[in-house]
Amino acid sequence: MKKYVVLFLATVFFVTVACKNQNSQIGSSENATEQKSDPLPSWNEVKSKQNIIAYVEDVTNSESANFIPVSERIATFDNDGNLWSEQPAYFQLFFAIDRVKEMAVDHPEWKTQEPFKSVLENDMASLAKQGEHGLVKLVMATHSGNTIEEFDANVKEWIKTAKHPTKNVGFDELVYQPMLELLQYLRANDFKTYVVSGGGVDFMRAIVTEIYGIPAEQIIGSRITTAYEYKDGKAVIKRTPGLDFNDDKEGKPLNIQKIIGKKPVFSSGNSDGDLQMMQYAASNSYKSFMLYVHHTDEVREWAYDRESHIGRLDKGLDQAMSDGWTVIDMKNDWKVIYPFELE
Amino acid sequence: MKKYVVLFLATVFFVTVACKNQNSQIGSSENATEQKSDPLPSWNEVKSKQNIIAYVEDVTNSESANFIPVSERIATFDNDGNLWSEQPAYFQLFFAIDRVKEMAVDHPEWKTQEPFKSVLENDMASLAKQGEHGLVKLVMATHSGNTIEEFDANVKEWIKTAKHPTKNVGFDELVYQPMLELLQYLRANDFKTYVVSGGGVDFMRAIVTEIYGIPAEQIIGSRITTAYEYKDGKAVIKRTPGLDFNDDKEGKPLNIQKIIGKKPVFSSGNSDGDLQMMQYAASNSYKSFMLYVHHTDEVREWAYDRESHIGRLDKGLDQAMSDGWTVIDMKNDWKVIYPFELE
Repeated sequence: MKKYVVLFLATVFFVTVACKNQNSQIGSSENATEQKSDPLPSWNEVKSKQNIIAYVEDVTNSESANFIPVSERIATFDNDGNLWSEQPAYFQLFFAIDRVKEMAVDHPEWKTQEPFKSVLENDMASLAKQGEHGLVKLVMATHSGNTIEEFDANVKEWIKTAKHPTKNVGFDELVYQPMLELLQYLRANDFKTYVVSGGGVDFMRAIVTEIYGIPAEQIIGSRITTAYEYKDGKAVIKRTPGLDFNDDKEGKPLNIQKIIGKKPVFSSGNSDGDLQMMQYAASNSYKSFMLYVHHTDEVREWAYDRESHIGRLDKGLDQAMSDGWTVIDMKNDWKVIYPFELE
Repeated sequence: MKKYVVLFLATVFFVTVACKNQNSQIGSSENATEQKSDPLPSWNEVKSKQNIIAYVEDVTNSESANFIPVSERIATFDNDGNLWSEQPAYFQLFFAIDRVKEMAVDHPEWKTQEPFKSVLENDMASLAKQGEHGLVKLVMATHSGNTIEEFDANVKEWIKTAKHPTKNVGFDELVYQPMLELLQYLRANDFKTYVVSGGGVDFMRAIVTEIYGIPAEQIIGSRITTAYEYKDGKAVIKRTPGLDFNDDKEGKPLNIQKIIGKKPVFSSGNSDGDLQMMQYAASNSYKSFMLYVHHTDEVREWAYDRESHIGRLDKGLDQAMSDGWTVIDMKNDWKVIYPFELE
């Protein structure tokens, strides 16, 4: 059942505003020459930035002993808490809650049935008490029973207007500007960038493709089960209530092997759920780079690590320290967190 | 259990000789100008060829109402019987048989245990009598219990010397020259080419990447289960004895949705196992192209369809006829079958 919760709590997001910001920041704009010399302009001149640039320059230099052929330049990025925020709960949860409210018209029985009752009464304390079982019910009710296309349309419609409960901006605006620059920098150096997240794969595909510049086929995530139907000459894939794959912890390297068939050389995450993916990249025979985002900024974002229920970073932090992986100190390393701060 | 058999019987192959032939055929060689005007030189001037070219020219023409953006140009190809031969049995079966013989040194008990006994005694009639249960045992014994890297090395070592039982050439030489040209033609027109096969994904990745010009991450197939291990600072993925996914029939569109997240616009297969993938492509809102290979050449290749145990084409042929899908008549449509015929 835990797995369902991960799927449920699992998230993803962002969108057009952020995307536009990214483009104007990275693209053609004013000081083009300065940007050419600095691929990561939203980063302070800190160790993490220097490490990244030194690595990329080394492994893309055909004279270097560490040169990596283009076909092997696979970079995998966790999403929640790594490419966009994940507090006070994975953003996918807010989608599920909003969907329940929307779907309630056709489900009068939800007024008295948990966990729907709590959701409809905006009683989050009571919702939390429903535990994993309640969360599974919520996910399955809102994420299945429709076709791939219908679900995609639901998510796209939702993200247009949904607002984060405390930041009061679109969830899709809460992407990390420095990470957008990193994705772009890696691609400019012929790395193939992937999202590998505990979040739902179709939920992510509906939102992040444009913002991150990552196509659907390079987005990997948790999945509910699906079924093929062929009726009246029409082929349809239906989303059914069951967990097909939990893309978290050891699920990440397993899914990377299944889907990509290559070990990443660059891996980035922010929680213990990413640790196995990090270890997998670290075992690459090519020189690899492991990057942890450490949430240290309680003013501009959130500060949490070893004790957090969401995005706990404990064992991962220990291994990063002992193995010399690069850790981003959000508060001190990043000039801005979100694209809208650039305006 | 049937699913295991599919996994087991499922195949894949070819290699360097074929690859070199392909390159010399398609690449720089003698009559470059003629080849520029004819992207499919090993095809006779037949309806199937005309249909393919008319389709590609239409959907890549930005002035056409049927224009397809590059990001949506997904082309999926079955492998066994579609990109290389599959008679008298899926080539992966020969790998399993050869592995049993090689591994027998460490398994003296196999001399008296079925299905290994039959294999070691080259008694194929008796092996066939072991049925599905025997086949599953054979697959699991030869395809699991090692790491991803070890299995990859096994397959690569095997393909170097293994010979087809009747054609007496390497299995990797039994790829279809006209289909290599088609793959190349589609890629030259910005289609992303995928293999989507009932064959084992890691078996295929070990062999066909170079021959087909298709990277590991664009090869989709059946999979056995895997497990993540982290010991003494080393991350390893082990192949374990169980079926993880059967990439056949409705499994094909389901896997395409999971992994690619887009509907194909071009789909090619040769059996009823490909029918659902064809239907899925046919349901694309973009103009799509469905292509069946019909095995009609009992001299140069094999002739079989509705009654065959391997690669049965029955319902698929009916739907191709009724829905106007393109069917390749191997005997009459292809000037050569295999690359070595060009020499």
